Amino acid sequence: MSASVSFTTQAQFARIATPGQPFAFDSGSVMDDLTLAYETYGTLNARKNNAILLFHALSGTQHAAGYCESVPGTSQRWTDDCKHGWWDLFIGPGKALDTDKFFIICANYLGGCYGTSGPTSINPATGNPYGPDFPQVTSADVVRSQVRLLDQLGINKLHAVLGNSIGGLLTLNLATMFPERVHLVISCASGLRTTVLSRLTVFEQVLAIENDPHFQGGNYDESKAPELGLALARMISHKTFVHLDAIERRARGEVQQRNNALGWYQLSHNVESYMLHQGRKFVKRFDANTYLRICNLWLRYDPLRAAGVETTEQLFAISAAAGHKWLVFSIDSDFCFYPEEQAELVRALETSQVPVMHITTHSDKGHDSFLLEPELYTPHLAYTLMQADASLPPIEEREEATEFGM
Amino acid sequence: MSASVSFTTQAQFARIATPGQPFAFDSGSVMDDLTLAYETYGTLNARKNNAILLFHALSGTQHAAGYCESVPGTSQRWTDDCKHGWWDLFIGPGKALDTDKFFIICANYLGGCYGTSGPTSINPATGNPYGPDFPQVTSADVVRSQVRLLDQLGINKLHAVLGNSIGGLLTLNLATMFPERVHLVISCASGLRTTVLSRLTVFEQVLAIENDPHFQGGNYDESKAPELGLALARMISHKTFVHLDAIERRARGEVQQRNNALGWYQLSHNVESYMLHQGRKFVKRFDANTYLRICNLWLRYDPLRAAGVETTEQLFAISAAAGHKWLVFSIDSDFCFYPEEQAELVRALETSQVPVMHITTHSDKGHDSFLLEPELYTPHLAYTLMQADASLPPIEEREEATEFGM
Repeated sequence: MSASVSFTTQAQFARIATPGQPFAFDSGSVMDDLTLAYETYGTLNARKNNAILLFHALSGTQHAAGYCESVPGTSQRWTDDCKHGWWDLFIGPGKALDTDKFFIICANYLGGCYGTSGPTSINPATGNPYGPDFPQVTSADVVRSQVRLLDQLGINKLHAVLGNSIGGLLTLNLATMFPERVHLVISCASGLRTTVLSRLTVFEQVLAIENDPHFQGGNYDESKAPELGLALARMISHKTFVHLDAIERRARGEVQQRNNALGWYQLSHNVESYMLHQGRKFVKRFDANTYLRICNLWLRYDPLRAAGVETTEQLFAISAAAGHKWLVFSIDSDFCFYPEEQAELVRALETSQVPVMHITTHSDKGHDSFLLEPELYTPHLAYTLMQADASLPPIEEREEATEFGM
Repeated sequence: MSASVSFTTQAQFARIATPGQPFAFDSGSVMDDLTLAYETYGTLNARKNNAILLFHALSGTQHAAGYCESVPGTSQRWTDDCKHGWWDLFIGPGKALDTDKFFIICANYLGGCYGTSGPTSINPATGNPYGPDFPQVTSADVVRSQVRLLDQLGINKLHAVLGNSIGGLLTLNLATMFPERVHLVISCASGLRTTVLSRLTVFEQVLAIENDPHFQGGNYDESKAPELGLALARMISHKTFVHLDAIERRARGEVQQRNNALGWYQLSHNVESYMLHQGRKFVKRFDANTYLRICNLWLRYDPLRAAGVETTEQLFAISAAAGHKWLVFSIDSDFCFYPEEQAELVRALETSQVPVMHITTHSDKGHDSFLLEPELYTPHLAYTLMQADASLPPIEEREEATEFGM
């Protein structure tokens, strides 16, 4: 994967809240000094109508493509795992998101720990990190903060908004909170609500972190963070990202960890060792308070409230009225966002007569397929991004195939 | 459910290790004073050939049927949840396990906390509970300990052994470690190995408990036990027992817990409150060190090693040679032991030409169906238990239906 990285990138910073333009969180908190860390790839054209906003997944960063050696202020967390863009296989010249044609923007979510303002940022009032005092963040807050970034970049209307996994939940927010700001909406391996299973899995992760002896209500010191709790949270989620067969395959190559790695438990199997390794790797690059904010965002996801409507029909009527086109991807082996969830999203779009194309990819990689198998997504992504303005005849005029077609 | 309880029961105790007959655990530990708490229902006949041994599930007790007010030595854990037998809908006069015909035995697993020797028992060397010093227990240890109980009861050959969930894993152990001791083998909502998913889910539970600030390597005081860790473990497993739709339905009726119930976290949804309630209810009736022993039993389940063979074929050849008959139940909505797992077990039995009947019940209750819906299991259980000795013509003589049958 790293061999394909063809360019280097650098984080940029946008101050999206100032004393003159404070930012009001859904929680009621107001802050007047907030920064988003973001990256861009490609060139914004003169009409500023070739921009694609990309939302990252749960623990993602603004660094979607290329190679980035470091990001100011995140030195201890910018591990080797972070240096190669997480969607590098999809972004670049001639790739699915073609940087010769499009201007792609990806920003670290508000509350993040990769240069965007969040719990690890210094609170000027105390000189210490905000920690638990940083406000909770909703998906609507994240979208509003990124629309401020679009304003600063002079982009009135996105060619497309695109999100994978929980990033897909944010695309729905943007499309229905700011319908006039986007043309194409692309949601991959995502859905339209927080299912019971997701809620339970995320809730477990919250408790795993908050019950760590080092958590201390979020007032932990960086040097004594709730590492095992955060590692356990990652393990709980990791098993929903990776196909179980793949976990078993990967675990075979795993060196058994020393038994004292976990304090009490005597490891009994290389699958346990593999998962523990995943957990510990994550702890090095992530902050527990930030993770809790992303969990909270997911648990309290409410696109109806964010768009100021009462029903799903009203929600998608907004998208219909704005003339959006949607592209929805399912992965048949996904058990983080199950295919039923995308089917539900597509049914809702169709009920509101929003044009939608729904593609299921067949993969043995589970949810992670959207990171690993560009060949399964690139044709439809590239086609849809390029054809969005070309007018095919309406579908009802294409119901009858010519006699010679079969 | 409680209305159907028609008789009262009392725990009995069998000393299955003495200085003259010490018990050697698979771990290498040897103990010479071990007690099993058990209950029996019905009457053992003069030939002692009408006995059914029932293995309980993960957190079950010896109290499978009827009403039991208390068990000596377990007063603080014998909560109202424990008083009604967990399989009362299946055991009694005229029920699936008919007490007018059969003598049913159920014992709390070695390492348990309901009267059987385990971490909560007093260590005579110290005068304090064994706690973490009680040996780890394998499923083979549990089976060996219960065969000692059968010896004491004078039962040479069981009419049937029956287990649900992880109890089904123990039926496979008994059938292949002591093949001459049983005739019918009944495995419900279980499998033949610890799958990757089960391993991950159980491993998470171990870490949840061991990372609780009160765990202290297992050296906790009863009054300051790792309650939140144990509650989290229960929540992680509970979501695999109950169908998600049912969790959602039940959660609607749940009173929102006070926010301080969890220390830091602000509950955002009644599903969270419901799960927390499940976790907290469990903590009242279970001991963390015991729970870890059951987890360990599941994680290290190895029926090949227990039976002293190398391959699955050799394992089931034991069952074939002993003339066992098997009955296997699957639940279509089960995602604790998925239907694929029973299918794998049945394929292995068929490969070794062991007579097996495989029944799938269709339920919206998930794994818990085997506790809640006796009507789905009773006909086949009763029929198989009664017909086991009646000789139907071999299946190959029944391939052709008579002309008049269709």
